[in-house]
Amino acid sequence: MAFTESELIAHLAEIFASSNPNLEVGIGDDAAVIRTSNRTVITTDMAVEGVHFRQEWSSAFEIGRKITAANLADVFCMGAKPTFLVVALSLTGQEDLNWIIDLAKGIVFEANLVGVTIAGGDLAKGESVTISMTALGEVEDPILRSGAKMGDQIYLSNLPGWSRAGLAILEKGLSIENELAHRALAAFKAPTLNYEFAQNLIGATALSDLSDSLVTQAEQMAVASGVKFNIDFALFSAAVDYADLLSLSSLIGIDIHDLILGGGEDHVFIATGNNLPGLLVGEITAGSGLKLRGNEKAPDTWRHFD
Amino acid sequence: MAFTESELIAHLAEIFASSNPNLEVGIGDDAAVIRTSNRTVITTDMAVEGVHFRQEWSSAFEIGRKITAANLADVFCMGAKPTFLVVALSLTGQEDLNWIIDLAKGIVFEANLVGVTIAGGDLAKGESVTISMTALGEVEDPILRSGAKMGDQIYLSNLPGWSRAGLAILEKGLSIENELAHRALAAFKAPTLNYEFAQNLIGATALSDLSDSLVTQAEQMAVASGVKFNIDFALFSAAVDYADLLSLSSLIGIDIHDLILGGGEDHVFIATGNNLPGLLVGEITAGSGLKLRGNEKAPDTWRHFD
Repeated sequence: MAFTESELIAHLAEIFASSNPNLEVGIGDDAAVIRTSNRTVITTDMAVEGVHFRQEWSSAFEIGRKITAANLADVFCMGAKPTFLVVALSLTGQEDLNWIIDLAKGIVFEANLVGVTIAGGDLAKGESVTISMTALGEVEDPILRSGAKMGDQIYLSNLPGWSRAGLAILEKGLSIENELAHRALAAFKAPTLNYEFAQNLIGATALSDLSDSLVTQAEQMAVASGVKFNIDFALFSAAVDYADLLSLSSLIGIDIHDLILGGGEDHVFIATGNNLPGLLVGEITAGSGLKLRGNEKAPDTWRHFD
Repeated sequence: MAFTESELIAHLAEIFASSNPNLEVGIGDDAAVIRTSNRTVITTDMAVEGVHFRQEWSSAFEIGRKITAANLADVFCMGAKPTFLVVALSLTGQEDLNWIIDLAKGIVFEANLVGVTIAGGDLAKGESVTISMTALGEVEDPILRSGAKMGDQIYLSNLPGWSRAGLAILEKGLSIENELAHRALAAFKAPTLNYEFAQNLIGATALSDLSDSLVTQAEQMAVASGVKFNIDFALFSAAVDYADLLSLSSLIGIDIHDLILGGGEDHVFIATGNNLPGLLVGEITAGSGLKLRGNEKAPDTWRHFD
C-alpha cells in the first residue's frame, strides 16, 4: 500500500467522526461506548467481493451505501430505529486510498439518511475485500416475522424487481441507454430504500424486507406466523412504476413475474396489517405457505406453489 | 458442500441456543432483540484465514476460542462486563460440517466462560474463511486508555510471551516435546485469558490488553494519557512462570526480551493504578512515551526507546 495503516485509520476516523452525544467513546480505544435504550436490536451482515459486489460493476461509494442499507433494513424490519453501526473491513493491500475513502463515505452517506452513527471498526488483511457490519437499533415493541394474522392484508413499500433488472443488464452485458435501464442499474448498485415506510408503520403485525425475493420472504413469514399468504399478481399493476418495469422487462428479455416475485436486494419492505401505507398485494388467510394468483410461471426460487 | 445452508443454520442455532432471558428474540428473525443497560460497550474484530489463523496449525475449536477471546478482551478493556456477541462467517464451501460445528463450539465455550450469549450471525460465501465478531458489554464507568496518571503503577495480569513462543515453534517447525513447548503452543492456539483480573479491578485508572505487544500498547496508553510509562524489565522475573519462559526462550532461540516485550496475542491485560492485583512492572511519571529499563536490545516493534 502507498499509505500506512495509521494514515488510513486517521482518514476513516475523520470520515466517521460524529458529534452524536450518545457516542461517549468513539474510535481510538479498545471499544466504543454508546448510550443505549433498555431494548436493543442487533444484526450483522457480511459482504464479500466477487460474491456480493464487484468493483467493476459498482463504485466504492455505491458498495458502501448498499451494504449499509442491507444492515439498516434489518434493523427497521424489527420495527426499530437504527442508532449505531460498526464496520470490519479486510483489504488486500492493492486498494487505492481513495477507493477505501469512498467506501467509507458511502457508508456514512447511507447511515446519515437515518441518523445512524458509526461507532467503530476493525481493519484486517485478507485475500479479498470483505465488509462485515453490525448495526444496532432501539425498539420498544419489536415487530416480528411471526405476527401475521388471519384477516391482515399484505403491503409492500415499493414495487420489487428493479435491482434484479439492473443485475440482469450487467450480467448480460446489455448496453441499453435509456432512463429505465439507468434506474435499474442504480437500484442494483445502491438501492434507495423506503426508510420512511418502515418508520411510519402503525399497527403492522409482521414486517420484513425482500433481501432474497418476495416469494422466499413471504413464505418464510407465512411459516413463522402459521398462516397462508395469498398474493395476487394483478395487484402489482397498481404500482406507479409497474408500466415502466414491464417495459424494461421486455427490453432485457426477463419475464415481469420473475423480476417482481423472484428479485431481491431491493430491500423492499413487506408488512402485514390493516390500512397500512404502501402497495396492497394480498391478504392473509387460514392455512400455510404462499399462494400466488395471476402468475403464469414460477421463478427458480419458488419452492411451494399451488 | 455436503450439507445445505439451512441444515448448517439449524446446527448453529442449536449450538448457540441460550436460555438467557435478556435475549428476547434470537436467531431466526431479521435481527435479534436483547435487553441492554443505559451504557453499552461495542467492539468488532475480523480474523482472516492465513493471516490470523491457519487450519493446519489450529483446530476449529481453538480458532473459535481465540477469536472470541480477542473480542471479549476488548470489552473487558473498557472495564465492562461482556453480554452478547454476533458472528459473521464466510466459508469457501470446502469446509467439513464438523469443522464448522467445532468452530461454533469453540466460540460458545469461550463465551460461556464469562456468561456471554451469541445473539445472532450471518453466513456468506467467500474465497477464504473469515470470521467477524461484534461483542457488546455493559458498563457504568468505562476505564479508558487515556486515564493513566502520574504516581500510578503499571500492572500486568500475566507474563506475556507464551503465545509468541508458540508461534515461533510453529513457524520454525521445531519439534520440542516438553511441557513448556506444549504450554506455549496452547497459548498461541487458544490463549487462556485472565478474565478474573479484568473483572476485579478496583481503582484502575487505565486498562487495555496486549493484542499487539507490550511496547506497542504501553506507548499507545502513554500517548493517550499524556504521561510517561516506565517499565522495568527486572520486575518481570517476579512472575511465577518467568523461569519457565526463560528456559523455553533458550530452547527456541528467541531472546526473552523479544518474547515478553514484543509478543502479542496473549491478550494479557495491562492496567494502571495503585495496589492492583497482578504483576507490577513499572510506574507512571511525568513526560511522554515509553521508557524501558533493564533490556539490552529492542524488538522490531519498538518505535521509541530512550
